[in-house]
Amino acid sequence: MLDDITISRNATLQPITEIAKKLGVDENDLELYGKYKAKVNAKTNPKSKLILVTAINPTAAGEGKTTVSIGLADAMNKLGVNTCLALREPSLGPVFGIKGGATGGGYSQVLPMDDINLHFTGDLHAITAANNLLSALIDNHIYHGNALKLNPEKIYFRRCIDMNDRALRYCKVAGKNQGIERDEGFVITAASEVMATLCLANDYADLKTRLGNIIVGENENGDFVYARELNAEGSMATLLKDAVKPNLVQTIYGTPAFIHGGPFANIAHGCNSVMATKTAMTYSDYAVTEAGFGADLGAEKFLDLKCRTAGIEPNAVVIVATARALKLHGGVEKANLNSENIDAIEKGLANLYKHIENVKNVFNKPVVIAINRFPTDTQKELDYILNAVKAKGADGAISEAYSKGADGAIELAKKVIDATNVESKLQFPYELTDSIEDKVNAVVTKIYGGAGVEFSDLAKEKIKKAEALGFKNYPVIIAKTQYSLSDDATLIARPTGFTVSVRDIEIRGGAGFIVAVAGKIMLMPGLPSRPAAENIDVDAEGNISGLF
Amino acid sequence: MLDDITISRNATLQPITEIAKKLGVDENDLELYGKYKAKVNAKTNPKSKLILVTAINPTAAGEGKTTVSIGLADAMNKLGVNTCLALREPSLGPVFGIKGGATGGGYSQVLPMDDINLHFTGDLHAITAANNLLSALIDNHIYHGNALKLNPEKIYFRRCIDMNDRALRYCKVAGKNQGIERDEGFVITAASEVMATLCLANDYADLKTRLGNIIVGENENGDFVYARELNAEGSMATLLKDAVKPNLVQTIYGTPAFIHGGPFANIAHGCNSVMATKTAMTYSDYAVTEAGFGADLGAEKFLDLKCRTAGIEPNAVVIVATARALKLHGGVEKANLNSENIDAIEKGLANLYKHIENVKNVFNKPVVIAINRFPTDTQKELDYILNAVKAKGADGAISEAYSKGADGAIELAKKVIDATNVESKLQFPYELTDSIEDKVNAVVTKIYGGAGVEFSDLAKEKIKKAEALGFKNYPVIIAKTQYSLSDDATLIARPTGFTVSVRDIEIRGGAGFIVAVAGKIMLMPGLPSRPAAENIDVDAEGNISGLF
Repeated sequence: MLDDITISRNATLQPITEIAKKLGVDENDLELYGKYKAKVNAKTNPKSKLILVTAINPTAAGEGKTTVSIGLADAMNKLGVNTCLALREPSLGPVFGIKGGATGGGYSQVLPMDDINLHFTGDLHAITAANNLLSALIDNHIYHGNALKLNPEKIYFRRCIDMNDRALRYCKVAGKNQGIERDEGFVITAASEVMATLCLANDYADLKTRLGNIIVGENENGDFVYARELNAEGSMATLLKDAVKPNLVQTIYGTPAFIHGGPFANIAHGCNSVMATKTAMTYSDYAVTEAGFGADLGAEKFLDLKCRTAGIEPNAVVIVATARALKLHGGVEKANLNSENIDAIEKGLANLYKHIENVKNVFNKPVVIAINRFPTDTQKELDYILNAVKAKGADGAISEAYSKGADGAIELAKKVIDATNVESKLQFPYELTDSIEDKVNAVVTKIYGGAGVEFSDLAKEKIKKAEALGFKNYPVIIAKTQYSLSDDATLIARPTGFTVSVRDIEIRGGAGFIVAVAGKIMLMPGLPSRPAAENIDVDAEGNISGLF
Repeated sequence: MLDDITISRNATLQPITEIAKKLGVDENDLELYGKYKAKVNAKTNPKSKLILVTAINPTAAGEGKTTVSIGLADAMNKLGVNTCLALREPSLGPVFGIKGGATGGGYSQVLPMDDINLHFTGDLHAITAANNLLSALIDNHIYHGNALKLNPEKIYFRRCIDMNDRALRYCKVAGKNQGIERDEGFVITAASEVMATLCLANDYADLKTRLGNIIVGENENGDFVYARELNAEGSMATLLKDAVKPNLVQTIYGTPAFIHGGPFANIAHGCNSVMATKTAMTYSDYAVTEAGFGADLGAEKFLDLKCRTAGIEPNAVVIVATARALKLHGGVEKANLNSENIDAIEKGLANLYKHIENVKNVFNKPVVIAINRFPTDTQKELDYILNAVKAKGADGAISEAYSKGADGAIELAKKVIDATNVESKLQFPYELTDSIEDKVNAVVTKIYGGAGVEFSDLAKEKIKKAEALGFKNYPVIIAKTQYSLSDDATLIARPTGFTVSVRDIEIRGGAGFIVAVAGKIMLMPGLPSRPAAENIDVDAEGNISGLF
């Protein structure tokens, strides 16, 4: 099979004006970025059905959520059902690092894949600039007399960069009397609060208010200092004036795709912007969207946080799994993945079962399982999985969208459409009015399947402060490893009896959630010893190679 | 008079496709960024006449080079002469700091001023990303075993950010065992070598070669290590694939303007890209371009470096002055600028005379003086200046382009067109084959009017190394204060007998020049105590206020 960038280059794209016309987007709501990308004024009259694509806990094998999402939407359109996509936008860090881009793969791609994976329409750069303007204003304020009495040792807001740059994890800034020297650590832009804030804002005015509510740190008395006290929100919103608008592109099959925002799914909520989802739901009959990492992280946050904030809910949830990933959850070594192993699949299915139970029983939503087929899978393995999930009350289908495009996901599409016809009312594991400790506890016990939560003294103290200062009713984001249902990456499949340790609490005043930090979380990835960057090139005609 | 952003918003823009059509740009060479901005494939068949706009040494009063350049081009078009502009693109640092944007002012503006002053088409962000990818690769290489034996204390290549951020001037990176902790200092993107490299590249292939030639630092043996040894140039060029294309916008009067690249005029060469100038010269009969700071910095580098690299030369040079700035050069205090003072003007004219002599006698080019009129100027002052420069063999005219637009620069335009009809062959103060010391000496004695140059031992040693390693024939950039012809900012008007002290030498292997560092140079500006950022805002309809 051809590689992704070649398939992408061979595809014939329609002018984005044609895609917009098919959707019914008014010309005045469209701003072109070249012939095949456009910004669209956000619309917030969601009328379509919504399908959430999520997955089992990630493994080293990769599950292919984006590829399945794209293939599903392409197949639905092929069936004559008017469908569009709402997806996250890629970060440069992974593109030049090890993971590669985020535009799907094979014959299920959004295009132009090179542009989308590189600068796209500049949203991540705008977010980086808005973030770093606030940081510059903070240190500048301290330098020029520090009227707000900011405590340089308690600055929570951090600079960001859209790059995997290990050396910026721990640095010292403002040396040699250029202010007060203090510890700093850059985060990757996708992990920044500005990214999460943009993605959760309901509109422009809401964004500005939220930016002003970002907590930059503490003053000498231990009170919070907000971005609005530095008069920062107007300039930050100005830098974000175009970035707030969803981007419209297309798949290889001409399915419209709104790609907008890409917050991390550990430290933030891991799905595209509220505005993009609502815009997709305004212009189509079905919208397919995706949440990061496994269903315990991305889908939980999508449902508990984004749906509540935005007042939307999915009509069905697709959980992506692969035979290979199930074998890894079943204890197989990576080197032995190519051999048929029903026993390992049986063991690994425990992970999938838990996610099915969560979606069906806790969130009360219909589930369809998508088995993303790999060439090494045997028919016996695939049949085994399909029968197993059926026994758990979830329908399932094989997706061959990677190798066959829309034709490879027709059966999946039919089952998903059927699932959306089942009436269902979203339910939640916790109420927003619950205490912060109760909210964390509810997610750990009901979604992760753990025995309980242990809060450090620091976390308890911060929870007390957060509740006293008016943040009690914020939803919670548990930041933990994506590799396990627990907070221990080595506990694969379906661990039980574990306790999750919350060592710290962070308040995101702008994004509007509380982060409960359970275990080490990665805010700035590093590059591998042979970064993808070394193989990426461009010829004199502007043709890029080495992107994947 | 209305403020700049209001004038900008009141203007009626033509679709950029119309502007392109008038120029004769093929539709296939055009990539739209919204309705009023486009990227244009660079064309390098310069056929037009070229006019360089430069100025006296800057003062606190501001001279208005960009405003005069725009007004001049508008007036030439009004006279029926097919003219377009080639200008630098703004940096976010000054926009949110103290200086404001770089799109002209009053009725001489390039539009849309808000977009151009903010992210524009993302060029500066792309340059920042390409720069910081190389930095990440450097530290990552050291972290993963350091096969090239890079000396962490001799890394010359620095991270950059497009922001005035004093706290990043001196920092330490790679703390807590995330590599080898080392000193770092971010530069503003406009001061980065990647910016200078992009602006001097003749085409795409040339850019990639130059990026590979960037010297990142020294190894343990003291040998240079180049970006190509880290396999960085392919990825860097990939990040710059759109940024290499000139951007097309328009003035209030519909004059086409190619705005592309904006390197500092102290540490780099201070003018827009070679590709933009050549593209402007391909599509018009006259191209008006601009060089940063005073004629001793910007114009000298434009002529000695850019013209030589690109194989072009101007047909005439416009030197911008104001009565107010001449009074400051004549020793008047800023508080007394509003009073008529012919004596001070007479004294201050010495500065202008030196620049006239340089352009006419050293570079052998016709000169026209543009007096940028301010409301407080008296007619007697203006007449005095015009008569004085005429006596020095330079024609001159008043520009009222700021308040009157094209109509305010008709006389100037006529005189400039006349000047371009004079045959002239560009001459240089030095030959590229001269030794590095001789080149620096030639600029100091012939252009600055100094007595000579003192090289520190460090500078001498580095010159020896540079010449031994094949950099002898590179042109030189003297990095010094812009406020004086000398390297001492307090020596205004026309100092003589001074010696310039070169304390360090830096080699720009990619951009292709040697920097002789004379005095403190600013690579990262700071924000003032009340940054412009505090007053910039945007309303719910996306209307920006506070930009200037």
